[in-house]
Amino acid sequence: MDAEAAKLLGAGLAAIGAGVAAVGVGNVFGSFLESALRNPSAADGQQGRLFIGFAAAELLGLLAFVVAMILIFVA
Amino acid sequence: MDAEAAKLLGAGLAAIGAGVAAVGVGNVFGSFLESALRNPSAADGQQGRLFIGFAAAELLGLLAFVVAMILIFVA
Amino acid sequence: MDAEAAKLLGAGLAAIGAGVAAVGVGNVFGSFLESALRNPSAADGQQGRLFIGFAAAELLGLLAFVVAMILIFVA
Amino acid sequence: MDAEAAKLLGAGLAAIGAGVAAVGVGNVFGSFLESALRNPSAADGQQGRLFIGFAAAELLGLLAFVVAMILIFVA
Amino acid sequence: MDAEAAKLLGAGLAAIGAGVAAVGVGNVFGSFLESALRNPSAADGQQGRLFIGFAAAELLGLLAFVVAMILIFVA
Repeated sequence: MDAEAAKLLGAGLAAIGAGVAAVGVGNVFGSFLESALRNPSAADGQQGRLFIGFAAAELLGLLAFVVAMILIFVA
Repeated sequence: MDAEAAKLLGAGLAAIGAGVAAVGVGNVFGSFLESALRNPSAADGQQGRLFIGFAAAELLGLLAFVVAMILIFVA
Repeated sequence: MDAEAAKLLGAGLAAIGAGVAAVGVGNVFGSFLESALRNPSAADGQQGRLFIGFAAAELLGLLAFVVAMILIFVA
Repeated sequence: MDAEAAKLLGAGLAAIGAGVAAVGVGNVFGSFLESALRNPSAADGQQGRLFIGFAAAELLGLLAFVVAMILIFVA
Repeated sequence: MDAEAAKLLGAGLAAIGAGVAAVGVGNVFGSFLESALRNPSAADGQQGRLFIGFAAAELLGLLAFVVAMILIFVA
């Protein structure tokens, strides 16, 4: 396998990582919504932490996407 | 393996990522619906966060699909 | 591996993504049904969101299937 | 790897997708049965949505099987 | 890798799908039994849906087995 082939293959593998990160994002929002509907008055107070958790999980998915893009267009 | 072969193989790998992201989307909606049916009156107030979470997880799946399309038609 | 071989292999990989998306769809409906049977009178009011969530997860699985079809018949 | 080999290998990969979809189908029915036994009188009213969810998840598994069959007999 | 080798390897991959489907089948029966033991008098009334769910998940595992058999004996 030459380097040109490997970097395209690697981009595909990296895209799996972007998809898997969506499970983590879904987990953050799913758990938040589940509990926010049980205790709606407290939901606004926890919104800051929701977005920190969402951003942390989303960031990892975007990093996987960035790796895919770098492999295709830069490497 | 030449580059032409690798990018088609990579597109298939990237499509796995699109599918896995559906688990995250399903998690957001599943948790929301589970709790919305327990406390229907509060469901409308959390709808904004539902769509933020849905969009965040869906985005990562669409990014994986974009990687597949770039690998097939651009790279 | 030549390009003809890789696109067939890639189609098989993409089909995994279609199957995995079914887990997400199953999650949306599973959670909905579980709660709809606990509170049947509220189920009709949440049906709109059920179908948005179902469509969002199903879309990602269909995208993976589209990638498989493009790899077999177009690429 | 030549094209003849790859399409047989790809069909095997696609069959994984068919199997994984069964997890989603099992999730729909599992959650339904769990709650139907807790509230049997409401089970009949939700049967329509049960079959929509079952069909949606089953469809994605059948699509993966279709990809496997196309790879073996058509491509 | 020649075609003879690939179809044997592909059959092995397809068998993974058959195994994964057992998770879905196990989910259907597990949830049913868990609730049937909590409410045994209602279990008989839900038996029809139990077998529909079991058959749907089992079918996808059998399809993966069919792909493996076709790969070994037909392709």
